[in-house]
Amino acid sequence: MPPPPFGSIVIAGLGLIGGSIALAIRERWPAARVIGVDRPAVIAHALGGGAIDRGITTITEARDADLVVLAAPIRQNLELLAALAAAPRDRAVVTDVGGTKRAIVEAARALRPPLPFVGGHPIGGAERGGFAFARPDLFDGRPWIFTPDPGGGYDEALGRLETFVRGFGARPAVMEAGTHDRLMAFLSHLPQLTASALMEATGREAGVEGLHFAGRGLVDTTRLASSPADVWRDICATNSDAIGEALDRLIARLTELRADLPRGGAVASLFEDAARWRAELMKGRD
Amino acid sequence: MPPPPFGSIVIAGLGLIGGSIALAIRERWPAARVIGVDRPAVIAHALGGGAIDRGITTITEARDADLVVLAAPIRQNLELLAALAAAPRDRAVVTDVGGTKRAIVEAARALRPPLPFVGGHPIGGAERGGFAFARPDLFDGRPWIFTPDPGGGYDEALGRLETFVRGFGARPAVMEAGTHDRLMAFLSHLPQLTASALMEATGREAGVEGLHFAGRGLVDTTRLASSPADVWRDICATNSDAIGEALDRLIARLTELRADLPRGGAVASLFEDAARWRAELMKGRD
Repeated sequence: MPPPPFGSIVIAGLGLIGGSIALAIRERWPAARVIGVDRPAVIAHALGGGAIDRGITTITEARDADLVVLAAPIRQNLELLAALAAAPRDRAVVTDVGGTKRAIVEAARALRPPLPFVGGHPIGGAERGGFAFARPDLFDGRPWIFTPDPGGGYDEALGRLETFVRGFGARPAVMEAGTHDRLMAFLSHLPQLTASALMEATGREAGVEGLHFAGRGLVDTTRLASSPADVWRDICATNSDAIGEALDRLIARLTELRADLPRGGAVASLFEDAARWRAELMKGRD
Repeated sequence: MPPPPFGSIVIAGLGLIGGSIALAIRERWPAARVIGVDRPAVIAHALGGGAIDRGITTITEARDADLVVLAAPIRQNLELLAALAAAPRDRAVVTDVGGTKRAIVEAARALRPPLPFVGGHPIGGAERGGFAFARPDLFDGRPWIFTPDPGGGYDEALGRLETFVRGFGARPAVMEAGTHDRLMAFLSHLPQLTASALMEATGREAGVEGLHFAGRGLVDTTRLASSPADVWRDICATNSDAIGEALDRLIARLTELRADLPRGGAVASLFEDAARWRAELMKGRD
């Protein structure tokens, strides 16, 4: 087995993603040392499960790490990044796993002295968040997007990160942060907001009794509606322009449909287009 | 085993629902004779699979049935109902399985002489339509709503229909057609239109390459987007007022979210409400 690309790894935030990274390191890079940063209760849980070697409650306690992974909600990641920069140390590579990339890439670019930061976004996800739902195979076969600062000169760090996540079965890809944010506004943020808005509107109208008559369609369409509010408030705040455009696009489609309901011509044509895109989406998936 | 509540059953339309009814009859009421009405290719498929005893291509060929089930798209069901009324026969009970109920209940009420019609709507559904996806357990544990005309006097027919579908494991419920249509505008029609509009808007923006970066969230939220256009054009046309109100409600929520993206207060509060409704929706489901 090759040596791990990073010998000592600090993971700040042991939720679904951070916890799954810890478990995946255990499986693929067992020689690496893993230090978790979180509240004492989560640390105890992660230590008990053998996911981490050591737990700390403040990122600045971490010393001599080769890699720091910021895996908290985005605003917290921005604070953690500032805290790391304020306490200069050996040049650990720093990455994050947040769902938007421009805000943190710009924050890292502004640091003096600079940190070797490469933004990252694993496309995984599960119905529920938190360490209890973490799994070592969460990233298997899934994309992991990196958004290095084009002028940053961290090619060597990027190469090590790509090796690191390939070890989890992920497929690394490189993208400009703005391209990432616009794409994710449609692929991820719009479905999330739509699912939550749909669940709220439908629940309020149907009530507890009415929901008993819901079929599998509503159940699938609103699966995302159990996502944690704090994570999504931060995503919305750091990608509001792109999400706004995506919402406008959806609202325009729904408004067209509404006008055409009695005749149904636009309904039929939208359904045909949607079915074609759905078939594209499902190519190569189960 | 008790005798079947209907000894001879005509099913007009052997798609997902009609085909699943035929298969469920085979399992639960094997003494019943099943006659399918559809195109010759579908008839051949259903005969080959043993789902029906006999196939015909025109509903008026059916003679001496105890029950006629209209299982085509809604507009076709309306035409089939008129054809049945124009060719008077023994007083077979007539029901349908369409996703809206006011249009067909009103059409049945206007018939002279009247037919013993009781509208029905099994809440099942699967990712894809057509006989190829029919299954005998499609209705197991799921509601099956009946919407008898309050002044129709078909209590005995309703009772036999309830026994009939209980045999498939369904849970019969009785509801006024208008109540049904309004409830389904939110529980079923709104999720369907939303999923299709979301898939179309996202596919068009992301393109084939971009869709490779989609996570499980988009996949779940757009599952309904492969639904058949013809079925849904008819549902929209026969429930446009209620669906219009449901769309207005969703558009209003999305517009509020859009305005609040940078701050995120409305986002957080909507997410919390949505997560509560989602928990209600999932009570008693897997």
